[in-house]
Amino acid sequence: MRLEDAFATFLPQIEEEMRSLVAPPDSLAAGHYHIMEYHLGWRDPLLGAAYFSAGKRIRPMLCVLGCGASGGRPEAAIPAAAGLELLHNFSLLHDDIEDDSPTRRHRPTAWVIFGMPLACNAADGMFGLSHLAFYRLREQGVPDKAVVEALEKFDRMCLRLTEGQYLDMSFETRLDVTTTEYDRMIAGKTGALLGCSPEIGALVAGASAAEVASYRRYGEGLGRAFQLQDDVLGIWGDEAETGKSVASDILAKKKSFPVVHALTHPATAGEMRERYAGPAFGPDDIGPILSILDLAESREATENEVRRASDAARAALDDVAPSANPQYLNVMRDLLEALVSRRT
Amino acid sequence: MRLEDAFATFLPQIEEEMRSLVAPPDSLAAGHYHIMEYHLGWRDPLLGAAYFSAGKRIRPMLCVLGCGASGGRPEAAIPAAAGLELLHNFSLLHDDIEDDSPTRRHRPTAWVIFGMPLACNAADGMFGLSHLAFYRLREQGVPDKAVVEALEKFDRMCLRLTEGQYLDMSFETRLDVTTTEYDRMIAGKTGALLGCSPEIGALVAGASAAEVASYRRYGEGLGRAFQLQDDVLGIWGDEAETGKSVASDILAKKKSFPVVHALTHPATAGEMRERYAGPAFGPDDIGPILSILDLAESREATENEVRRASDAARAALDDVAPSANPQYLNVMRDLLEALVSRRT
Repeated sequence: MRLEDAFATFLPQIEEEMRSLVAPPDSLAAGHYHIMEYHLGWRDPLLGAAYFSAGKRIRPMLCVLGCGASGGRPEAAIPAAAGLELLHNFSLLHDDIEDDSPTRRHRPTAWVIFGMPLACNAADGMFGLSHLAFYRLREQGVPDKAVVEALEKFDRMCLRLTEGQYLDMSFETRLDVTTTEYDRMIAGKTGALLGCSPEIGALVAGASAAEVASYRRYGEGLGRAFQLQDDVLGIWGDEAETGKSVASDILAKKKSFPVVHALTHPATAGEMRERYAGPAFGPDDIGPILSILDLAESREATENEVRRASDAARAALDDVAPSANPQYLNVMRDLLEALVSRRT
Repeated sequence: MRLEDAFATFLPQIEEEMRSLVAPPDSLAAGHYHIMEYHLGWRDPLLGAAYFSAGKRIRPMLCVLGCGASGGRPEAAIPAAAGLELLHNFSLLHDDIEDDSPTRRHRPTAWVIFGMPLACNAADGMFGLSHLAFYRLREQGVPDKAVVEALEKFDRMCLRLTEGQYLDMSFETRLDVTTTEYDRMIAGKTGALLGCSPEIGALVAGASAAEVASYRRYGEGLGRAFQLQDDVLGIWGDEAETGKSVASDILAKKKSFPVVHALTHPATAGEMRERYAGPAFGPDDIGPILSILDLAESREATENEVRRASDAARAALDDVAPSANPQYLNVMRDLLEALVSRRT
């Protein structure tokens, strides 16, 4: 199975499951659900039906593929996959509020359209719905024990996600962030959910604890590689390809890996800290910061970490290879390569 | 068992369970948990250890009592009870942000101390923890089937809670709210969680579906009576007893039951709508509004509804009485009486 065939097969099923979950119980509360539908790309700002691109849906795909690779019917994992994608979107809704972000996916964020209070509350509704998705696993014949274990992993992940967001926000006011702390932050903010997705797929399939753990390691490695690659693109990405302005992460003074690397590198720490302690950056600051990052070889250091993380993810799949369904395992390998070599 | 003995016996166990759940995994993320601890009354604003009164803990008590009344060991329900109280506090943290409330329980709200972004995110962490509490039921010997069913009821309640908050916020800009819509709002905002609490207790005890449903009806009736009594106190409460300013709900133009009643009463709708459509109220508006409420007999109408709701709750307990443990059933009856006759 090719990567694009896997997406073509499972994405419509995932989308259908999500739509059947995000269904208003009656007209009185419909406005609450409209906010979720807007965020998910199913409505325009005036609430007409629409279809906007609303993310890559990588997490639910990993869940379905993890189930198929470990010998289950991929379709059995669709409810959990929908839950994982809803949880991801819950966290984006709150991140946009907490980070005061006006746009996402080229559209105004939900809080801009509906106001912060209603958008914050709609996200909480989506948090509830993401859990309700899991009870549908019972209709797929998944035993109660596996449902409880999948939900427990899901909730531990939810907690890790909020810890990651806490660290990310707390880094904004700090200049002494270490790469170890950065790793902990992305392990929560990106790794936890991407690790949990194939892990829960394998659990639904009834895989052994050792196999389940391997699928988690794959997802965590992929998540780390994905985030570090994002950090590379946020500074050195091609504006025409990423759709973001050049060096956007520098302008935002984001504590991404390359910046943390240069902030802690003996040769550059002094000057970097001085500049990052100063007033907000303008376009004229980009050049000098890029020179400092060159001196510290921060791009190479980040790309090394991308490689390390993707190697770890690949090795985790090698561990399960003997007992796995190669059809889906190969799609998981292809997805990893596609994500770490992406330019947007 | 007397009401105060039940609180003296179970509250320390519930508190202990909550504290063991809200435990930072390491020092790096400790600040995230400090925000939760502040809200729960366990820390002062400078993060020193403290003990402030942090609510009546009615929900976890109902859960423990529901378990005991339906023949279970009350202690077996402690994890679920802690989860219900954490969920309640998660919703308060977000309500305070969404309603822009500066104080709660005579202290600055968490967002005032820590800022909106960190407080919003800490609430999400508490949402995760409220779920993690339930997996501890397995250690109490509760079968996986009952754990899954308890969690499903819990998550349906979470969704209803957000619908209630949506309706409450959407009422602010409307003058045509009906008492039916008001009922739907409090059924979500107050009834869902108070209904779910003894229901989950009974489920943990292994009660029959019919008994479980009766405990839910008890909690829902108690919740409705509790909220309507709150509405009475918000207008006619004694300032010295409630600690709130006289007629605080009038000054805030809150769409509480008495107000909705007068807004829809043929004799008063016209004048009420005109006044509520006008500019913000000052102290001089209280007298005229009280006169309109008198004319519509809105206080009597609300007190009638309190009686109807508490009668329904009492009848639900009568349904389970033959098979219930009278020791805990009587505490549940006493708790109902105490809540509907309260003056603060």
